[in-house]
Amino acid sequence: MEELIKSELVYSGKLIKVRLDEVKLPNGKISKREIVVHRGAVAILALDNNNIILIRQYRHAAGKFMWEIPAGTLEEGEDPLECAKRELLEETGYVANKIEKLIQFYVAVGYCTEIIHLFIARELKKLSQKTEEDEFINVYSIPIDKALEMIKNNEIEDAKTIIGILMMKNVLR
Amino acid sequence: MEELIKSELVYSGKLIKVRLDEVKLPNGKISKREIVVHRGAVAILALDNNNIILIRQYRHAAGKFMWEIPAGTLEEGEDPLECAKRELLEETGYVANKIEKLIQFYVAVGYCTEIIHLFIARELKKLSQKTEEDEFINVYSIPIDKALEMIKNNEIEDAKTIIGILMMKNVLR
Repeated sequence: MEELIKSELVYSGKLIKVRLDEVKLPNGKISKREIVVHRGAVAILALDNNNIILIRQYRHAAGKFMWEIPAGTLEEGEDPLECAKRELLEETGYVANKIEKLIQFYVAVGYCTEIIHLFIARELKKLSQKTEEDEFINVYSIPIDKALEMIKNNEIEDAKTIIGILMMKNVLR
Repeated sequence: MEELIKSELVYSGKLIKVRLDEVKLPNGKISKREIVVHRGAVAILALDNNNIILIRQYRHAAGKFMWEIPAGTLEEGEDPLECAKRELLEETGYVANKIEKLIQFYVAVGYCTEIIHLFIARELKKLSQKTEEDEFINVYSIPIDKALEMIKNNEIEDAKTIIGILMMKNVLR
């Protein structure tokens, strides 16, 4: 256990906040912890028969285009399931007849509070994409075995996407 | 593509920095991107016959104890392979006769530059753990099938750990 002694808000932005916390360790010593505070997010493993829906978009943090499963940040107080339906429609144009939660995970538990709720969506119907003003997203339907190959050769290098695809191979078969 | 227009350092800490960037979007509009800057890290999937080495430690960002594979942040300019050997020894007390890189991945590419380099370590020999002053880590050797079960029931909820265990099931068999 680490007992919180002091907490200072050192940055407050639109997407994230940063806290500098002081904690008391089990040996009684004091240590500092930098913590990125994030509202949490959803990611959606959308299955179209034996294909998976992947999106491709430019990511400024990586400085390149990335392959990802659809995902998005929770609005304040938003239910993760509603968020998953909303993001799936906005980013890909698909609605799912069946959508359920698989697991949740911390993306970087050493310093970040973000939890991603991973959903699996099935029985898809294509409507039209409704991206936000600052999103430019291409949508692809990729055979599952091809997606697995893209993990092995590291063409896919996004953590939530790797988890989604590998979960499907392990859990659903 | 997003063209960088302006970059402001809004927080500079020991582990992370935060930049507030302005970028020009493909439609010519300007948007802001909050970016957590992180040096990168390593994580090690250490195999002990049909067992995997897991550690358990309190994580302040989550407010609880977590199951994880051994991992750690790169020192400035450190080679990921050397870092992986160092962290494996420090956190678990094991040295590996064989250690090689599997893949790398971004933990939260929407806002964070952190890349984790995932290594697989085999032919382990147990020496003694050398944790840092602020680390309190318990080490366990867990059967692979048990670890997979802990992912499915969400007892394991750390992204790099889920990726490591699932990669092993998919890639190595």
